[in-house]
Amino acid sequence: MSAPQRSPRVVALGGGHGLQASLGALRRITPDVTAVVTVADDGGSSGRLRRELGMLPPGDLRKALAALSDSEADTQAWSRMFEHRFGGDGALAGHAVGNLMLAGLLDVLGDPVAVLDQVCRLLGVRGRVLPMSCEPLDMEADVTGLEENREAVRTIRGQVAIATTPGRVREIRLYATNGHRTRPTASEEAVRAVSEADVVVLGPGSWFTSVLPHLLVPELHEALVETRARRFVVLNLTPQPGETADFSPEQHLDVLTQHAPRLRVDSVLADADSVPTPDRLRAAAAKLGAQTLLDQVAVPAAPGRHDVGALAASLRTALERRTD
Amino acid sequence: MSAPQRSPRVVALGGGHGLQASLGALRRITPDVTAVVTVADDGGSSGRLRRELGMLPPGDLRKALAALSDSEADTQAWSRMFEHRFGGDGALAGHAVGNLMLAGLLDVLGDPVAVLDQVCRLLGVRGRVLPMSCEPLDMEADVTGLEENREAVRTIRGQVAIATTPGRVREIRLYATNGHRTRPTASEEAVRAVSEADVVVLGPGSWFTSVLPHLLVPELHEALVETRARRFVVLNLTPQPGETADFSPEQHLDVLTQHAPRLRVDSVLADADSVPTPDRLRAAAAKLGAQTLLDQVAVPAAPGRHDVGALAASLRTALERRTD
Repeated sequence: MSAPQRSPRVVALGGGHGLQASLGALRRITPDVTAVVTVADDGGSSGRLRRELGMLPPGDLRKALAALSDSEADTQAWSRMFEHRFGGDGALAGHAVGNLMLAGLLDVLGDPVAVLDQVCRLLGVRGRVLPMSCEPLDMEADVTGLEENREAVRTIRGQVAIATTPGRVREIRLYATNGHRTRPTASEEAVRAVSEADVVVLGPGSWFTSVLPHLLVPELHEALVETRARRFVVLNLTPQPGETADFSPEQHLDVLTQHAPRLRVDSVLADADSVPTPDRLRAAAAKLGAQTLLDQVAVPAAPGRHDVGALAASLRTALERRTD
Repeated sequence: MSAPQRSPRVVALGGGHGLQASLGALRRITPDVTAVVTVADDGGSSGRLRRELGMLPPGDLRKALAALSDSEADTQAWSRMFEHRFGGDGALAGHAVGNLMLAGLLDVLGDPVAVLDQVCRLLGVRGRVLPMSCEPLDMEADVTGLEENREAVRTIRGQVAIATTPGRVREIRLYATNGHRTRPTASEEAVRAVSEADVVVLGPGSWFTSVLPHLLVPELHEALVETRARRFVVLNLTPQPGETADFSPEQHLDVLTQHAPRLRVDSVLADADSVPTPDRLRAAAAKLGAQTLLDQVAVPAAPGRHDVGALAASLRTALERRTD
């Protein structure tokens, strides 16, 4: 006789559109989803707000809130407003209204976790959205392939620069920037969420700028290594120019190991059509302790985008696998 | 035996800080308060948004929402955020977050009345806030005293220019500005609110730029003249430089008559210490059909500001007077 099952407590770590995809899939599986979100963005509306107000870049947080928001009539208007961007060519052009609201609430309430909980209530979010750190972070990357000597290493600073510079990212570092570079500090709530989860999901997303950063915040790294949760890694559908232009799926796993040698993984999920050499991926996954699950999870008409329903089915399969 | 009394249905018309004072007082008297708000502002954060996005100037609407908002724990954070202005010296400096939210909701929902109802729910407003017109309006004023010939009339355009140009406003006109000047159209909901009210309250506020504009929108003018509601006029505490620098309290009433000859008034409320010649005020009020009520309603330490509690008491006295 089995005990009555409670909904699994899932924590998804990432940023940007990749995290939106995993959150969209996970909310179909369980009501207990917590997003842990990167705060190292320095581009677009987020970058402008960050530079102007010295605040946490809000864009990835906003996207995660939108992905978990309710679609009922009353909250729907707020969700639409939250995602709306001002048009025109003035001072506000391109700013998402939700970013400006998050900026205002941060000014008024101070604590980013309180701000996000407040917005969760407005948007009818089931679950929670947390920043990986309560202070804005910066990243820098060692990149090769930028000079005639293809092995020469250049250091590139800033998320946008890293994501758009050609060449190949070799290593990435993260730091807090209050005048001088200091070690980043994790949000305590994010650490607790990872520690208390049943499942943690890393990826999909820009590998170096949205996924790996979670392993570069020491307390969060430790929590991810130590948690008794099952760990799933969801690989990307297509390599990203600038970050992972010529990376194979298995190299994505190698990069994880390189930045977190003690990290064990239970399941690696990938799109069957995006893996040219399944045996190599299985071998790389096995080194992390993981089973590999290949399903068709891309939108057929848009091979770069995850089909949220298919990804949910794949995640459900992984969840239901026996862990021996 | 008297019938059980329902709460009086009160509509307050105005703009800016004056309307905040009357709303703050009225909410102490009845839960059924509707604010009808000017939309001709062209200064500050409102003016910037209006020019950039072609939208209804949000500032006076925001102030009215704040005046009627609840102070419970959950809505309080929203109210604080709504009134918060960004600091610094960047593109957002000086913008009230509430103005940006109203701008975003207007973009998304279109109908200003739906937008304001939505925000009322967020802020726990008991009552309603309505724009006097659903399109942004412009004003122009005939002003004397600007040239060597003190009687020469100059036309000044725009609320800020009118409120800050020295000289004396003689007449004011209001128009919609969709490319060319057209007759302003009233918000249907505002007209209905005035028609169905038990009491309408005009003023206090910048006389030419916040109070009179309501009489310059034809359908609203007609509703104010025709309504079976009792009509109260609340006079200002101190003359305003630029608009009413050398205006006596009775001249404020004369200006009303000049712009709305058919308007009848039931009660004129004024601060006892701000009326140098009470007999003249009583005579001017009587010409409008009104009784005059003089109470001390200024904050003792700040004679330019209404004491909301004292103003409420004065309004309650006016409400309880027998109408013969």
